[in-house]
Amino acid sequence: MIFENKDKIVFTGDSVTDAGRKRPVGEGLWEGLGTGYVRNVDSMLAMLYPEMMLHIANTGTGGAASCDMLARWQTDVMDLKPDWVFLMIGANDVWRQFDEPNLDNDRYMPERYRENLEAMVSQTIPTVKGMFLISPFYMESNDNDAMKKRMVEYASICREVAEKYGAKYIDVQGEFDKHLQYRYPAYISWDRVHPGWVGAMIVATKILKEIDAKPIY
Amino acid sequence: MIFENKDKIVFTGDSVTDAGRKRPVGEGLWEGLGTGYVRNVDSMLAMLYPEMMLHIANTGTGGAASCDMLARWQTDVMDLKPDWVFLMIGANDVWRQFDEPNLDNDRYMPERYRENLEAMVSQTIPTVKGMFLISPFYMESNDNDAMKKRMVEYASICREVAEKYGAKYIDVQGEFDKHLQYRYPAYISWDRVHPGWVGAMIVATKILKEIDAKPIY
Amino acid sequence: MIFENKDKIVFTGDSVTDAGRKRPVGEGLWEGLGTGYVRNVDSMLAMLYPEMMLHIANTGTGGAASCDMLARWQTDVMDLKPDWVFLMIGANDVWRQFDEPNLDNDRYMPERYRENLEAMVSQTIPTVKGMFLISPFYMESNDNDAMKKRMVEYASICREVAEKYGAKYIDVQGEFDKHLQYRYPAYISWDRVHPGWVGAMIVATKILKEIDAKPIY
Amino acid sequence: MIFENKDKIVFTGDSVTDAGRKRPVGEGLWEGLGTGYVRNVDSMLAMLYPEMMLHIANTGTGGAASCDMLARWQTDVMDLKPDWVFLMIGANDVWRQFDEPNLDNDRYMPERYRENLEAMVSQTIPTVKGMFLISPFYMESNDNDAMKKRMVEYASICREVAEKYGAKYIDVQGEFDKHLQYRYPAYISWDRVHPGWVGAMIVATKILKEIDAKPIY
Amino acid sequence: MIFENKDKIVFTGDSVTDAGRKRPVGEGLWEGLGTGYVRNVDSMLAMLYPEMMLHIANTGTGGAASCDMLARWQTDVMDLKPDWVFLMIGANDVWRQFDEPNLDNDRYMPERYRENLEAMVSQTIPTVKGMFLISPFYMESNDNDAMKKRMVEYASICREVAEKYGAKYIDVQGEFDKHLQYRYPAYISWDRVHPGWVGAMIVATKILKEIDAKPIY
Amino acid sequence: MIFENKDKIVFTGDSVTDAGRKRPVGEGLWEGLGTGYVRNVDSMLAMLYPEMMLHIANTGTGGAASCDMLARWQTDVMDLKPDWVFLMIGANDVWRQFDEPNLDNDRYMPERYRENLEAMVSQTIPTVKGMFLISPFYMESNDNDAMKKRMVEYASICREVAEKYGAKYIDVQGEFDKHLQYRYPAYISWDRVHPGWVGAMIVATKILKEIDAKPIY
Amino acid sequence: MIFENKDKIVFTGDSVTDAGRKRPVGEGLWEGLGTGYVRNVDSMLAMLYPEMMLHIANTGTGGAASCDMLARWQTDVMDLKPDWVFLMIGANDVWRQFDEPNLDNDRYMPERYRENLEAMVSQTIPTVKGMFLISPFYMESNDNDAMKKRMVEYASICREVAEKYGAKYIDVQGEFDKHLQYRYPAYISWDRVHPGWVGAMIVATKILKEIDAKPIY
Amino acid sequence: MIFENKDKIVFTGDSVTDAGRKRPVGEGLWEGLGTGYVRNVDSMLAMLYPEMMLHIANTGTGGAASCDMLARWQTDVMDLKPDWVFLMIGANDVWRQFDEPNLDNDRYMPERYRENLEAMVSQTIPTVKGMFLISPFYMESNDNDAMKKRMVEYASICREVAEKYGAKYIDVQGEFDKHLQYRYPAYISWDRVHPGWVGAMIVATKILKEIDAKPIY
Repeated sequence: MIFENKDKIVFTGDSVTDAGRKRPVGEGLWEGLGTGYVRNVDSMLAMLYPEMMLHIANTGTGGAASCDMLARWQTDVMDLKPDWVFLMIGANDVWRQFDEPNLDNDRYMPERYRENLEAMVSQTIPTVKGMFLISPFYMESNDNDAMKKRMVEYASICREVAEKYGAKYIDVQGEFDKHLQYRYPAYISWDRVHPGWVGAMIVATKILKEIDAKPIY
Repeated sequence: MIFENKDKIVFTGDSVTDAGRKRPVGEGLWEGLGTGYVRNVDSMLAMLYPEMMLHIANTGTGGAASCDMLARWQTDVMDLKPDWVFLMIGANDVWRQFDEPNLDNDRYMPERYRENLEAMVSQTIPTVKGMFLISPFYMESNDNDAMKKRMVEYASICREVAEKYGAKYIDVQGEFDKHLQYRYPAYISWDRVHPGWVGAMIVATKILKEIDAKPIY
Repeated sequence: MIFENKDKIVFTGDSVTDAGRKRPVGEGLWEGLGTGYVRNVDSMLAMLYPEMMLHIANTGTGGAASCDMLARWQTDVMDLKPDWVFLMIGANDVWRQFDEPNLDNDRYMPERYRENLEAMVSQTIPTVKGMFLISPFYMESNDNDAMKKRMVEYASICREVAEKYGAKYIDVQGEFDKHLQYRYPAYISWDRVHPGWVGAMIVATKILKEIDAKPIY
Repeated sequence: MIFENKDKIVFTGDSVTDAGRKRPVGEGLWEGLGTGYVRNVDSMLAMLYPEMMLHIANTGTGGAASCDMLARWQTDVMDLKPDWVFLMIGANDVWRQFDEPNLDNDRYMPERYRENLEAMVSQTIPTVKGMFLISPFYMESNDNDAMKKRMVEYASICREVAEKYGAKYIDVQGEFDKHLQYRYPAYISWDRVHPGWVGAMIVATKILKEIDAKPIY
Repeated sequence: MIFENKDKIVFTGDSVTDAGRKRPVGEGLWEGLGTGYVRNVDSMLAMLYPEMMLHIANTGTGGAASCDMLARWQTDVMDLKPDWVFLMIGANDVWRQFDEPNLDNDRYMPERYRENLEAMVSQTIPTVKGMFLISPFYMESNDNDAMKKRMVEYASICREVAEKYGAKYIDVQGEFDKHLQYRYPAYISWDRVHPGWVGAMIVATKILKEIDAKPIY
Repeated sequence: MIFENKDKIVFTGDSVTDAGRKRPVGEGLWEGLGTGYVRNVDSMLAMLYPEMMLHIANTGTGGAASCDMLARWQTDVMDLKPDWVFLMIGANDVWRQFDEPNLDNDRYMPERYRENLEAMVSQTIPTVKGMFLISPFYMESNDNDAMKKRMVEYASICREVAEKYGAKYIDVQGEFDKHLQYRYPAYISWDRVHPGWVGAMIVATKILKEIDAKPIY
Repeated sequence: MIFENKDKIVFTGDSVTDAGRKRPVGEGLWEGLGTGYVRNVDSMLAMLYPEMMLHIANTGTGGAASCDMLARWQTDVMDLKPDWVFLMIGANDVWRQFDEPNLDNDRYMPERYRENLEAMVSQTIPTVKGMFLISPFYMESNDNDAMKKRMVEYASICREVAEKYGAKYIDVQGEFDKHLQYRYPAYISWDRVHPGWVGAMIVATKILKEIDAKPIY
Repeated sequence: MIFENKDKIVFTGDSVTDAGRKRPVGEGLWEGLGTGYVRNVDSMLAMLYPEMMLHIANTGTGGAASCDMLARWQTDVMDLKPDWVFLMIGANDVWRQFDEPNLDNDRYMPERYRENLEAMVSQTIPTVKGMFLISPFYMESNDNDAMKKRMVEYASICREVAEKYGAKYIDVQGEFDKHLQYRYPAYISWDRVHPGWVGAMIVATKILKEIDAKPIY
């Protein structure tokens, strides 16, 4: 497993990461980490490695698009001096183009997304042991769906930025696509954006696999 | 316009009809009729025909599938002695097969839906001036989507039952399909089942057209 | 229809416009635009012109008289850089003279109303494609009623200011007067000032007619 | 003053009497009597006659029309074995005809109102020291207003029933008419039906005058 | 009656005056003036003199002792530019000596009370048509009760200050003493400090008498 | 100390005993016993005798007079099969005569109080190890105060009943009288009926002394 | 994995199982299964076996001891006609002996626990594919702790009953003991009884292992 | 008893002291002092010495560790100019090392605790009549428990600092240890840190003994 004793690991992103975390920094007992995938990652790591002290923090913010994330980057990530950073952003950049198409959406366009991501990744990589970009995803099995296509486009940008700067890319969309071969989206998400309990487990176990965690049983 | 002065018109169905109506019978001022399409129908009729007294009542019940509707038919429809009945049911029969596929769904199967509809329509038609079956609908533009296909199948049953008993069938799905050529489902519904404000307007104006209401302006 | 693709249209005024809108600017999904006539205008336009992207915003503020409106004009209208502006103000200027006659009401007098209106209209007209002044109105059919007479007086000032500066005047009072030939005020308003659901529909359809919208069905 | 030491006086009627009284019987300290005119009558009598013990009770029920009042008469009046009864009913009989004209209003017609009143008065008069019928009223100065005319019609029935059975009629409408020569209805009531603080004082002092109370100062 | 048309009358003091008034200044409809004696004074004046416009405002503050009142005097009284001022203060100066005798009570001593009162009265008298000092009072009939004696001592100071500066002194304690010959304190007050409904009526009618109001009936 | 291991001790009475206890029977952790003197008795006994298991239960009911207490006696005392019973009742019998003198108070008269007490004590004594009657009390130092005199009269009845049936009488009034030589009633009670924190401690320690508890330190 | 397609699996027990489940039966989306270990089991199974339809239900009840569980057995387990039953009960039987030692605890004694368990297991085994008894546990590492020893004693009874009737015993205590070698109890539980997020994950993964689920990654 | 008339005594510390006290300074009636041991100390002193005026204040703050306490020392203690100071701090310094071992705990280490304590004690001693350090404590009877051992270590530091500066050390841990010979920790505390009602009584009576209070009875 890649984390070392006393490492500080910051997860950040939009509402999928936030999941009701404590303010200003989500950490510690109770609802500190929220009730989403970050909570699961922390619980599983504590279960698997009780002898290690891993400081996990959650600074996800509901509703954040990549421009909002960039504006919070200093306080929400850099100031915390993390050893590892996990960033899941982009879903709102895409979503706003589809649920509020009549409002001004310039700041959500692909190039802006790429610029925002690059600004965040480039300043972070030199200061951490490692950085992970989790793909934005959409729980829709129809690859011709307009929003799914757009999300895949943004996920590609995300992967490209990860590769360009040496961050690791985690393909969560692929995990959901596999699941959706058997289950309809409504089973795991009421809006195809927010994963429910099952989705949070899928994201968390994908992350554990990516960090080479030992088997859960 | 088909309604006559002092007619009593009952709208019933699931949460799309309910929309927060008053209990036990939704009628009268304030939130009596809820905040959905029934409210719009009532407001538009009052605006267009202030000289007519139309008694509109709403007995929709959130979460109701056709079996639940049948169980409430006597108290929620027959006891009110309506002149006209509008029934929109079936969305939950279909939805439960997709969002809770692992629970027992026998009571939602097509034949049960048909039987339930027939039981409601057959006992009502002889007692009213007219009955309307509003198609169950799904705000999804991909006709190959599993749940959309299932919903269309139920809408067909709905139309067949209407024709068999002389009720009038109102094709709301078609209206949404036209709208979805231009807008993504997320624009009018967070879950593709519950119409938002725009959807409620679409349903209401479709109904006004079907009852031959005069132009709004 | 006068609006063009991507136009931004701002509605502002008092509680009739506000209707529970989101702060600081009412726009977007859910309750963004409130639950009053602005909501209806938006829903109808989205239904009629799904292919057009119209950015509708609501900055109405409950309780505002014309002096309050003027004080908010820069932030609530000019800063939003609208293409079109709809202003409905004056009801509180009149109302305070009748429900709190013993408090200081100098700032609500006709000349102040006229000055306030002129200050708002004159600075706006040069910057927009068009501006509409919606008449303040009172849902009272007795033209000899003291408050009705006063409201009509203010509506005249409103029309005069509109004409002076080339804004378009929308006579909503006339619509309500027609309706009140058949229905008693209590049917659409508990206080003859706030339109209920029917009144919101009357205002909205009047606006659609004034902007040359195509028939709803 | 007509009341004698240890007399029990029951006030009953609709929301104007109710005013938030305690259930099942409104009496005693705090909000026992509600915050309307009954509270004022009690406070003034206690102030004027501290040496007398007068048991005042309030069983008004918000929303009650005369038919509802009759249905509650046994428990809300007769079972309490009052020495004096004050009844203010009829406003809702009239109001429903104007704010919900499209619902079934047969039970609110004048003859039903008369029958209901007669049934209540005739059974009560033989058992009490005295009974007062307080006129239903409407805080509208325009005597040609449709609802005002209807209310006056019901007030006449009320007076006729009082005279027929030897109850005393208290003309509260007349008091409000005098007040409205100087003040607009909105000053004392948001809906012209519910008196505010000033209206409650007007009703209470009218009642004190009718029972020959000594001067307040 | 001493007030003239358009006069502005400010009532201020502690919780007995406050009674839940609106912030920052209590005035206007609904609960603007609170639910205590100020409300009654306003209602009675409006009932008696509907043709006069009297602007009554309430700036009482719960818990205020004379030192707190002095600290708020500029904003709560002088800035409002009243024609008449009514001040009821001193009960908390006394009460704190009895319910929290172990806390620091130096600022509540008689000389401080006198100084505070003089500071308020002396700066106000030259700017108003008249000022009234309402006696602090205690609803206790036993004149040997320690707190009653102390309250009477403070009331004497209040009267002396009134006389020294030409303010009018209103002896409310005397009114309550008369009432308590017949009723036990618990009947009008749970703590002998806060008058209930009856007490608010007693204070209000005493004030009306002092300003030479015409008879209520 | 008179209690033996595993004894069950029931405290009952009015709001002074109740103090927010759990329903239907107040016992166990947290707020089970309420926050009044019963809580203190339990805490002190647990502190002094941790080796003994004493089952303390609280069935006091806010607002209860002796007639109400008698009506609940079977369920609130006898059914619990206590070894010891503590009863504090009578304050409301007296209070109602003073704070609601105008309501019907026959059921609170001294003879009724005596009868009620006798009915409760006589059926209980044969079934328990011991019963204690705690005097009703009033935190007023003036022995000529009307309500204090009445309370002392009821306390005498309480003592007489205790003596007649062999119950033990606990004179709590005497404890408060001693305290009131130094402190004003407002210090320990806002209404002279409900003891605050200090009063609860006074009652509890008096009880500990009466049961011969060992010194607290 | 032992479950087969369309199997119905009921989890029941005390608050650890309950965890805020829906009433009357916890199942389906959202908070249907609560937020404890049952939720985790369901999420993991859905993730691992999306092609299987497993109907998981939760009927745990907060505060239940074995006697309470037995009283609910018919409605909470048998009536649901499960294929598999998981029962975790006994913690409250033990806890009450330690946190409320002075109340009557006879119904929590070991023999009663054994009898209750046997009654539940014996009637269930013949009707199901399999039954699991999850050990009651206490998150305390000191084996000499009085409550830990008692809990272990009850866990032994639980194992004996499982063996006697052919149910499978799941030793969760052992899992926690391993974890507590590294972490202090306060890390996973504020009261050593309710597992937090980590504890819920430990219980869930232990169950997955016992049913031979495939690796999570 | 060591306190003298009019002495001001400040209690401060963490949540055990806080117990819901009023902000910014806890003092006076009602919940001013919170509902913990400070409340009990105040009540007992008032009961025992009604002739003395002791000004007791509570500035405990929930969650405070010694570093937080030091940061608040000026405003929460020195600015109040106390005659006596009681400080109970350290439990959170220890607890955080056990319930959040993976977060950064440097600021809770023993030397930091000692430094913080010394900084507070050294500046206070010269300004007061006396200062008391109440031992941090843990309601756990097993002396080999890791957190208990750590707490004892901190209590030793506390005692050493007290001795070094001439403050008085109060050994509350010893009192709880005695109690725990008979009762299990769960009886007096759900988390072994927060004393319940019994624990608050134990702390309070220990303090009364240390200040040489006279016997309670």
